Amino acid sequence: MYNFRTDLAVERREIFKKANKIENEIDGVEAEEIIDSEEITTTRVKITTEEGEKALGKPIGNYITIDIKKIKSIDEDGIQSAADVLSRELKSLIDAQIGKAEDILVVGLGNEYVTPDSLGPKAITEIDVTRHILNYMPEYLEEGTRPVSAISPGVLGTTGIETLEILKGIVDNIKPKLIIVIDALASRSIERISSTIQIADTGIVPGAGVGNTRKELSKKTLGIPVIALGIPTVVESAVLVNDCLDIFIEKLQQEAQSNEYLNKLKDEDNYETIKEALVPNDYNMIVTPKEIDDLIDNMKNVVARGINFAL
Amino acid sequence: MYNFRTDLAVERREIFKKANKIENEIDGVEAEEIIDSEEITTTRVKITTEEGEKALGKPIGNYITIDIKKIKSIDEDGIQSAADVLSRELKSLIDAQIGKAEDILVVGLGNEYVTPDSLGPKAITEIDVTRHILNYMPEYLEEGTRPVSAISPGVLGTTGIETLEILKGIVDNIKPKLIIVIDALASRSIERISSTIQIADTGIVPGAGVGNTRKELSKKTLGIPVIALGIPTVVESAVLVNDCLDIFIEKLQQEAQSNEYLNKLKDEDNYETIKEALVPNDYNMIVTPKEIDDLIDNMKNVVARGINFAL
Amino acid sequence: MYNFRTDLAVERREIFKKANKIENEIDGVEAEEIIDSEEITTTRVKITTEEGEKALGKPIGNYITIDIKKIKSIDEDGIQSAADVLSRELKSLIDAQIGKAEDILVVGLGNEYVTPDSLGPKAITEIDVTRHILNYMPEYLEEGTRPVSAISPGVLGTTGIETLEILKGIVDNIKPKLIIVIDALASRSIERISSTIQIADTGIVPGAGVGNTRKELSKKTLGIPVIALGIPTVVESAVLVNDCLDIFIEKLQQEAQSNEYLNKLKDEDNYETIKEALVPNDYNMIVTPKEIDDLIDNMKNVVARGINFAL
Amino acid sequence: MYNFRTDLAVERREIFKKANKIENEIDGVEAEEIIDSEEITTTRVKITTEEGEKALGKPIGNYITIDIKKIKSIDEDGIQSAADVLSRELKSLIDAQIGKAEDILVVGLGNEYVTPDSLGPKAITEIDVTRHILNYMPEYLEEGTRPVSAISPGVLGTTGIETLEILKGIVDNIKPKLIIVIDALASRSIERISSTIQIADTGIVPGAGVGNTRKELSKKTLGIPVIALGIPTVVESAVLVNDCLDIFIEKLQQEAQSNEYLNKLKDEDNYETIKEALVPNDYNMIVTPKEIDDLIDNMKNVVARGINFAL
Repeated sequence: MYNFRTDLAVERREIFKKANKIENEIDGVEAEEIIDSEEITTTRVKITTEEGEKALGKPIGNYITIDIKKIKSIDEDGIQSAADVLSRELKSLIDAQIGKAEDILVVGLGNEYVTPDSLGPKAITEIDVTRHILNYMPEYLEEGTRPVSAISPGVLGTTGIETLEILKGIVDNIKPKLIIVIDALASRSIERISSTIQIADTGIVPGAGVGNTRKELSKKTLGIPVIALGIPTVVESAVLVNDCLDIFIEKLQQEAQSNEYLNKLKDEDNYETIKEALVPNDYNMIVTPKEIDDLIDNMKNVVARGINFAL
Repeated sequence: MYNFRTDLAVERREIFKKANKIENEIDGVEAEEIIDSEEITTTRVKITTEEGEKALGKPIGNYITIDIKKIKSIDEDGIQSAADVLSRELKSLIDAQIGKAEDILVVGLGNEYVTPDSLGPKAITEIDVTRHILNYMPEYLEEGTRPVSAISPGVLGTTGIETLEILKGIVDNIKPKLIIVIDALASRSIERISSTIQIADTGIVPGAGVGNTRKELSKKTLGIPVIALGIPTVVESAVLVNDCLDIFIEKLQQEAQSNEYLNKLKDEDNYETIKEALVPNDYNMIVTPKEIDDLIDNMKNVVARGINFAL
Repeated sequence: MYNFRTDLAVERREIFKKANKIENEIDGVEAEEIIDSEEITTTRVKITTEEGEKALGKPIGNYITIDIKKIKSIDEDGIQSAADVLSRELKSLIDAQIGKAEDILVVGLGNEYVTPDSLGPKAITEIDVTRHILNYMPEYLEEGTRPVSAISPGVLGTTGIETLEILKGIVDNIKPKLIIVIDALASRSIERISSTIQIADTGIVPGAGVGNTRKELSKKTLGIPVIALGIPTVVESAVLVNDCLDIFIEKLQQEAQSNEYLNKLKDEDNYETIKEALVPNDYNMIVTPKEIDDLIDNMKNVVARGINFAL
Repeated sequence: MYNFRTDLAVERREIFKKANKIENEIDGVEAEEIIDSEEITTTRVKITTEEGEKALGKPIGNYITIDIKKIKSIDEDGIQSAADVLSRELKSLIDAQIGKAEDILVVGLGNEYVTPDSLGPKAITEIDVTRHILNYMPEYLEEGTRPVSAISPGVLGTTGIETLEILKGIVDNIKPKLIIVIDALASRSIERISSTIQIADTGIVPGAGVGNTRKELSKKTLGIPVIALGIPTVVESAVLVNDCLDIFIEKLQQEAQSNEYLNKLKDEDNYETIKEALVPNDYNMIVTPKEIDDLIDNMKNVVARGINFAL
């Protein structure tokens, strides 16, 4: 499989098309773009066959990307518009899986004490949970209210427990019908950092975005549908440099009218070499906007509100 | 049962002795005091029979109280001494229950976004977890290292899930042999706020300290021994006023050479009346030192270090 | 002077009227109440003569109190309504002092690491400052924009410098025409904690609300008008018990048909005795709602938004 | 002047020597290296003449660099050792300027709500201030205690006021004899992020490290000596890519036995082109370790402790 170094289906589709010089659509993949407003664009990528699965390296299912421009300086109205779009897309995926009053567990992955990894736990604090009220004081809620619960299970490095182990136990005990997982993703684009949400109905491999792949959370491992809300919060520095080198080599080739050696270089994947050169000892270097704390806060509001409306 | 309005066995013992004018020891209760240093005193209260159980309203077992003076201005050495004492007492309770290399899960109860309730979650972030290293990279640890994991399950109000439900699921999946629970307790003494640790080998009723009683966490409900580390972080304002009124009525009686009416007042429990008068609508009023943020931080270090040494 | 133990002119007026059995208005004091909505009430107290000054122990000037009900569970619309009222009142006080485009410095007093004292510094982070943009990139702002700057000078205990010394230096250098100071106040009412804003055009004695009186910030000391925005965030525990004792003694008198001794007690001020009994060593005990972190956050939004609209 | 894109004199010296193929020492520059321990190395660079000044683009004076290895996993002892070295170097610079009991003001630059920019304000909270105690309760301190005060003036973007304006006012009012400024620096080396401290007795241009150059803080502008403690906390992403390209072009030249075009490329400074390509709209992209929150916390302890010992 091609090493895409992005979790966004929409980016993989572009890379695959470019690499294979495909003009129309990839076989087994459907795509549709909606301009919601000047600031918000939604792209729905659907992988429909095994062929599409193989091409994009992701399971059959729906991958919806919401791109929000200028989230850095977004105001109250902008947050509301983005939350509305998220709510609309999320609702359609949920309604395709379970009934209107069926139990949902929202899970915020990540380490809240590491800024670029804190979006999940922060969003969780804003989710309107109802399950305990329905259990203890149902008279305070309208009939037909959906039971919602929410948890931040922490990360393996601080708990010593795989997220899958924690969630399995909770699912066995409280028996939700669907899980929504919020997590960080890897993207190749700096502009997408904390500005894009991918909603997928195929589950998630947590930590993939920040270089610590963990056990998959999906219907296969948890027994119930898992909708993943992924937000790119960092770009690996080696990916950045690799992409820059590609551009650079292309420029060299144009101007120097190419030579064999550069062609070879271009075909090679220089990622591992760069990574080695860049990453001192045990650091995990990332590229991030200096304003990441603010960006995370704004995106947290969009995500929490979008989920609350959808439920 | 007498309404003690304190979770500390050591305070209950004093109240019971005073109320019943007992000079020596309560039947079914043993007590021992150790002066560890000028700043640290340890009191070991042991409830040995059903009679003691009934007197103090707590199950048969060990209740160790460590009082630390001047934790507000404690320095690095003071934190170390307190952690050493905590470690010594905790170790003896653990060793009485399980083997040296058996699996332990540390649980930090409370809501980290509510200062007086944040001690558990904050201490958890400092626990040295080893379980995942033993699973994935055992070569990095000495042989015989005890598997330790740690989790902050959140509170019912923000998760919608009973702590017991979450822990049951985790215990079923990762099968620890013992649980250590860190939680806030109710005390009657302002001086004990964030300055006292009670270690009990009988489990805990979480939230009791902050007025939201939840399902018991104990061997009975979880199937494995539960050691509770409780720290008083607030005093209810109605308890404070009630205690002040008692002192005041006593003073009145002395000076006015008593009268029937005051005697009656004194025997009554004015707590509920005061509570009603004091507590507007849905607030939960507490008495706390203004420096509670700092106190919690210092105590967090004592607790985390004490646990790390003991394990 | 009567020891009111509250900084709110509106509470002092009530206490003074009750203590002196005044049915109509105190001489030299005017008052007006506006019901802004079901949740918001504004009271404008004006001290007009030296007599009024002596009665309420506060200088001649305007004292506007905005009471916001249920700020604990306030939503976006509620924050907006409260901010609108604050903006209206603040604007009228500012317009009475300086021109529409004259320079304003907003000052957030308090220690952001001590929750009940953190409102000032937190609100400052949300103020829309324009002074530097007007200096460096005026083309980005509409003509006639007012220069606004904002600072959190910290507290004496952590800086070693009196707030007055810091502000004097800044005022000398940047020469604003008016200062708005945000600070914590003392109130006698638990219900007013983080739910009431007092706006006064007479300056402030910082720290009065939390028991650390500092040098006055006012036109007298700084040379320019100082508008103070004070928010009660704590009630001293000795005040609380003192008030409860008063109620209690009254009840005793009613039922026991009084006696000389109780009369004497009632006339005495028991505050100092209670304070001594209550406050261990060097602690500063306060009564606060457990939800103080949330309350402060909501009030911060009201204050920052109210100021931003007014400017 | 050569564009070094680093504020560290020690890095500039290396770059200059390499670029100019200087084997021994640069004229007007002296350097000395001390191996303090396995983890800590101190380098003292002294610029002694105008020639040295011109070479390194920094004023005549002392530039001491302390490199601390593995600060990510540093323990209590490691923090102590690093603080001891910092204290030793800092003390020698201070003693060269003022007397043992003369007044010092410590200033923490930066925005505490932006993680890589928060070191200054965070360190300030840990400084032992004595000035107010000497003013109000001198009996609590030993005779001869130095008056120390500390302030975090905030950043231009959130205060609207130049740091220089704020400090000038404070210096005029409280008249310290020396200022210590803590700030973020730019470095070219990822390994130095939050692991290196540069102490300079020549003042500072704040914000240089994070791309927002502000007015100089120095004896020239403030009238008293300014010692700057600078810590690299980020590397600009364009610098990183530029450095990688240099290495890459070198490799190309070696293998392809060079050609004119590559030579030209190598001599060009590609920084601006890369910057344009990399930096979308108004973002300030940085390269940082994912663990930056932890690194900042550890370094904060080293800095605060080092300063406290030195004073």
